[in-house]
Amino acid sequence: MKSKSIGVLRTSTIVLWFAAMASIGCGPQQAAQVSQTPASSTADLMKQRGLSEADVNAALQTYTPTGKKDEYITFASGGHGGNLIVIGVPSMRILKYVGVFTPEPWQGYGYGDQSDTILEEGSRFGKKLTWGDMHHPALSETNGDYDGEFLFVNDKANPRVAVIDLHDFVTKQIVTSTLIQADHGATFVTPNTEYVVESTQYPAPLGGGYAPIEEFQDKYRGAAIFWKFDRENGKIDPAKSFAIELPPYMQDLADAGKLDSEGWVFINSFDTEMAYGGNLEGNPPLESGASQNDMDYMHIINLRAAEQVAKAGKTKKIAGMDVISLDTAIEEGLLHLLGEPKSPHGMDVTPDGKEIVVAGKLDTHATVYEFAKIKSLIEQKKYAGKDAFGVPILPFEDSIRGQVELGLGPLHTQYDDKGNAYTSLFIESAIAKWSIKDLKVLEKVKVHYNVGHIVAAEGDTVNPDGHYLISMNKWAIDRFSKVGPLLPQNFQLINIASEPMQLLYDMPLPLGEPHYAQMIKADKLKPIDVYKPAGYDPIKDEHSANAVKAKEERIVRDGKDVNVYMTAVRSHFTPDIIRVKKGDTVHLHITNVEQAHDATHGFTIGSYNVHSSLEPGKAVDITFVADREGTFPFYCTEFCSALHLEMAGYMLVEPG
Amino acid sequence: MKSKSIGVLRTSTIVLWFAAMASIGCGPQQAAQVSQTPASSTADLMKQRGLSEADVNAALQTYTPTGKKDEYITFASGGHGGNLIVIGVPSMRILKYVGVFTPEPWQGYGYGDQSDTILEEGSRFGKKLTWGDMHHPALSETNGDYDGEFLFVNDKANPRVAVIDLHDFVTKQIVTSTLIQADHGATFVTPNTEYVVESTQYPAPLGGGYAPIEEFQDKYRGAAIFWKFDRENGKIDPAKSFAIELPPYMQDLADAGKLDSEGWVFINSFDTEMAYGGNLEGNPPLESGASQNDMDYMHIINLRAAEQVAKAGKTKKIAGMDVISLDTAIEEGLLHLLGEPKSPHGMDVTPDGKEIVVAGKLDTHATVYEFAKIKSLIEQKKYAGKDAFGVPILPFEDSIRGQVELGLGPLHTQYDDKGNAYTSLFIESAIAKWSIKDLKVLEKVKVHYNVGHIVAAEGDTVNPDGHYLISMNKWAIDRFSKVGPLLPQNFQLINIASEPMQLLYDMPLPLGEPHYAQMIKADKLKPIDVYKPAGYDPIKDEHSANAVKAKEERIVRDGKDVNVYMTAVRSHFTPDIIRVKKGDTVHLHITNVEQAHDATHGFTIGSYNVHSSLEPGKAVDITFVADREGTFPFYCTEFCSALHLEMAGYMLVEPG
Repeated sequence: MKSKSIGVLRTSTIVLWFAAMASIGCGPQQAAQVSQTPASSTADLMKQRGLSEADVNAALQTYTPTGKKDEYITFASGGHGGNLIVIGVPSMRILKYVGVFTPEPWQGYGYGDQSDTILEEGSRFGKKLTWGDMHHPALSETNGDYDGEFLFVNDKANPRVAVIDLHDFVTKQIVTSTLIQADHGATFVTPNTEYVVESTQYPAPLGGGYAPIEEFQDKYRGAAIFWKFDRENGKIDPAKSFAIELPPYMQDLADAGKLDSEGWVFINSFDTEMAYGGNLEGNPPLESGASQNDMDYMHIINLRAAEQVAKAGKTKKIAGMDVISLDTAIEEGLLHLLGEPKSPHGMDVTPDGKEIVVAGKLDTHATVYEFAKIKSLIEQKKYAGKDAFGVPILPFEDSIRGQVELGLGPLHTQYDDKGNAYTSLFIESAIAKWSIKDLKVLEKVKVHYNVGHIVAAEGDTVNPDGHYLISMNKWAIDRFSKVGPLLPQNFQLINIASEPMQLLYDMPLPLGEPHYAQMIKADKLKPIDVYKPAGYDPIKDEHSANAVKAKEERIVRDGKDVNVYMTAVRSHFTPDIIRVKKGDTVHLHITNVEQAHDATHGFTIGSYNVHSSLEPGKAVDITFVADREGTFPFYCTEFCSALHLEMAGYMLVEPG
Repeated sequence: MKSKSIGVLRTSTIVLWFAAMASIGCGPQQAAQVSQTPASSTADLMKQRGLSEADVNAALQTYTPTGKKDEYITFASGGHGGNLIVIGVPSMRILKYVGVFTPEPWQGYGYGDQSDTILEEGSRFGKKLTWGDMHHPALSETNGDYDGEFLFVNDKANPRVAVIDLHDFVTKQIVTSTLIQADHGATFVTPNTEYVVESTQYPAPLGGGYAPIEEFQDKYRGAAIFWKFDRENGKIDPAKSFAIELPPYMQDLADAGKLDSEGWVFINSFDTEMAYGGNLEGNPPLESGASQNDMDYMHIINLRAAEQVAKAGKTKKIAGMDVISLDTAIEEGLLHLLGEPKSPHGMDVTPDGKEIVVAGKLDTHATVYEFAKIKSLIEQKKYAGKDAFGVPILPFEDSIRGQVELGLGPLHTQYDDKGNAYTSLFIESAIAKWSIKDLKVLEKVKVHYNVGHIVAAEGDTVNPDGHYLISMNKWAIDRFSKVGPLLPQNFQLINIASEPMQLLYDMPLPLGEPHYAQMIKADKLKPIDVYKPAGYDPIKDEHSANAVKAKEERIVRDGKDVNVYMTAVRSHFTPDIIRVKKGDTVHLHITNVEQAHDATHGFTIGSYNVHSSLEPGKAVDITFVADREGTFPFYCTEFCSALHLEMAGYMLVEPG
């Protein structure tokens, strides 16, 4: 059948286009068409879409035209989704979900040999975990400022800490200690990222053993783990890490001191009543058992002194961790308690490091503690008493500068560049702006609805930026189109530089329940575009021993092990036919030899649950047993070129 | 320690607030603060943020103030992320990722007994698959219009079809047949959703056996599966489904006829050369082997006739599927071929059902076929010849109305309400708007970059809406802040009602690589807010036999099986202590007894890899062996109330 009549192009001609595609497709000559005459006037559009003047103003503060970049990047935890959420501000567009505790196939995270080792590392009691409950991300800091190099984040359910490298946005390490059975006060870093703090939430026998719950006060304990970070290697060094045993209170959020208070760590707690529920056994449920006293305890830890005590070997090994016992901590003056408003949540050191703001969910106030007062009370050994475990308690009234009444359910506090604090009010569904100096509420803005944490631009540093604050709302109810009984959370962007504060944008969270976030200036991040030279293993962070160069592709059989050294390039894999026998162990070593930005390929073999993502220059290893005979297509899963569908081949598994 | 000096609230007082919280937090009285005076003027903002008049216009067409809803909902496939992406238009905010082929813990999808059975159903050759390569979503239709009830989508890698119920946005079924080893032309539905079409991409021996690739032409085959959908039960009925054997070409996208062409199905193909690669064995790679001929073949299937042939039992069973053999298909006149431009991708029947537009990636034209001509050629048996398998080939020139030259790499076509077609140009990175009647290009708009599919509002129905079109761009390159070597895709929203077309918005895809999407009027979707009455099993779609009512919570031991009948309500689980012995099998039956909108809880037991999401009224079952003795906290993973952190308990595993 001929086709003179139609303009069919010969492959030879096409090939040139493919070669030129990147430049054709991506040249600077491509200006967006929005530079042409708009469809209708501003007035028409306001009428059509029911926009107020304020809406127009908010739109112009957030709309980011094609090709323009965001000013800030926010890193939010994914909650029980188990992955990290990367968001551009002010556009409030989600730029990436980074796989951390949950396998994610688009990134090939947990679907190949290398990344699978990260998840294996994160096993507890020998059980591999396929999800996590991610709570509090912490950006690495230098002199108390975010440096844009690393990010740490915890898993509350299976107490773990992950290290994400911001040079390629890939999870490089997961550490865990069976010393504790749940965390929450994690992760928080010291001002130069010497340590990453992880503390327990729900007490348990240290090391993971069984003890009757009736022996809660006796046998159950909390702990604070200080993970030592080795910036050189970009990894936490468990051998140089240590922990301090804590009373069986439910320790909550923490913060590391900075500037004046550098070298100290502050941790909240609740359930100082040491209630443990038992509502089907005649006890009150934990929620009421834990709400009997008027106050709970702030834990004040002298980290610098603790480090010396640990180095001096005054520790015992529990579950492989060097632990400073509660008695030693008391003896050495490492731990003090201080009354704080009931059921505190946020523990937020002020940018100057001189004060600590605590907000208690069952108290309408924020309480402002002065570090200088705390320090001198400790030096004078001026105690209001001791707790049941002999830990000295500092006098509350002598340690605070004052309190400010904020409203219902104050939860978490952030700071701006003008001496103001912002505290979320969970029950009231509002953000209170208040003056730290004057302890006066200046203004409130309503949010929708039930705000948990809030995050301000560079808000946890010694130099907050002000301008933007995000209200991380737990409930969305009526804010978005309906998508069934499971609703997205709602991030609301607020301009805190304007007076009054201005609600700018509602952003649904389509996957996961963020708990905490940090917002960094975008220009502090310097991620790479391509792995250079080709053949790089992002997980081991080195050139792969199994990297394959073009023209060096081969299949090497060694008994029942078949090693396939494969390259990927638009638009074929080499080899594109793999012949094995049933029962062989297949070792795929695939290198994407491309060095063009965004020239990513994917690789899968049908029905074998094999998948991998191959960013430019990346090398992956995939091992599996060819346990089913048959004819199995493999192909590129990332639409890479006009002949992408032809980027395919066959694995032929002959009967053994 | 007393605290007269500070305003601590008693629990009793607080409790009232919690009870009232939903109303306090979510009442209509909460107007957004944007109604106050804006911070700076429009002119100031345009200068500050470098916005053009056109940018302002685009911002006002897309910005959606707090509480306002989107006009359209777009359902996009997640590619090798394996989940479905739900997007609001024009705001371009992602509202939800729905777990389909990949387990997702935030939804508890694949993390409890019920949803795990869905993934088990999707196993192939007895192997459980933990990801998928999702390509083409299809909304259920009534009389050729989206009805908003169900959505179907395929997995290309492990050929499967999933059914998602849009009443609760939950995946209810995954079907698979080992007849074929890869699909791509899936899913497409008939105008009343009687059938869901799934056809092969990469040929293989039917049924999944081994055959030497040298016998490709002899032993390898394609197939089209017609899955029968039972709307009553909301499930596909495999027993009433059937398939047609096809030649070993690489069948590609398909479309079902509508109106005049209802009852027919059209499927593209490439590699009619039957090349199979072998580039390490001296053959050319598939990409060139498959690009030798001038044209490929459209497959024309008479589905109504095929249905009768299948019902008449003129089939053979292969891998449990009733298959009409290629010979029978020829004998019964069910299958015809028709030349089409080289390497076609889009196969798009016009809204009136009278014509079919095909765009070939290696041809610069779109070709417009007239169904009436095709039908009469078939009736007259007027053939240009037969292929190597004896399938009659219709004469190309007599079947088309004409062609229109569009540009480089035309790929996929959508329609508006004014008789215009829109075709994506992959290599040129543009969208061409052209008149179907006049076969003339009217206009082009540049996109960024390398557009694959496009989706227009109600664009695959008999009544397209026009107005919005989304360009699903494969490469983003320089559009967004850098997030490492793996980049997001870029969805660009285009106003096609304006002249010229107007690029409105760039939206990054943070997870997954969408291939295809459909856009439906938001008011056609009627999802529920809450499972009523409490105790509903969303997967079995019935009230759960294990539902638990308040006050009926209990723990029942039967030998080594421990059944825990538990309720969840703000802010406790009952029971909150579970006592078992090492080695016991634990069966958790948890009901969220709340009926308040958005009152979702989560449940996890630390280190046991147990997690579940409990939307209001939902009942879940979780089974596991208590194989490790110890003291394991469990808690609510969804921030549900001010005492959420106290919504916790302990599983005590005594030494066996």
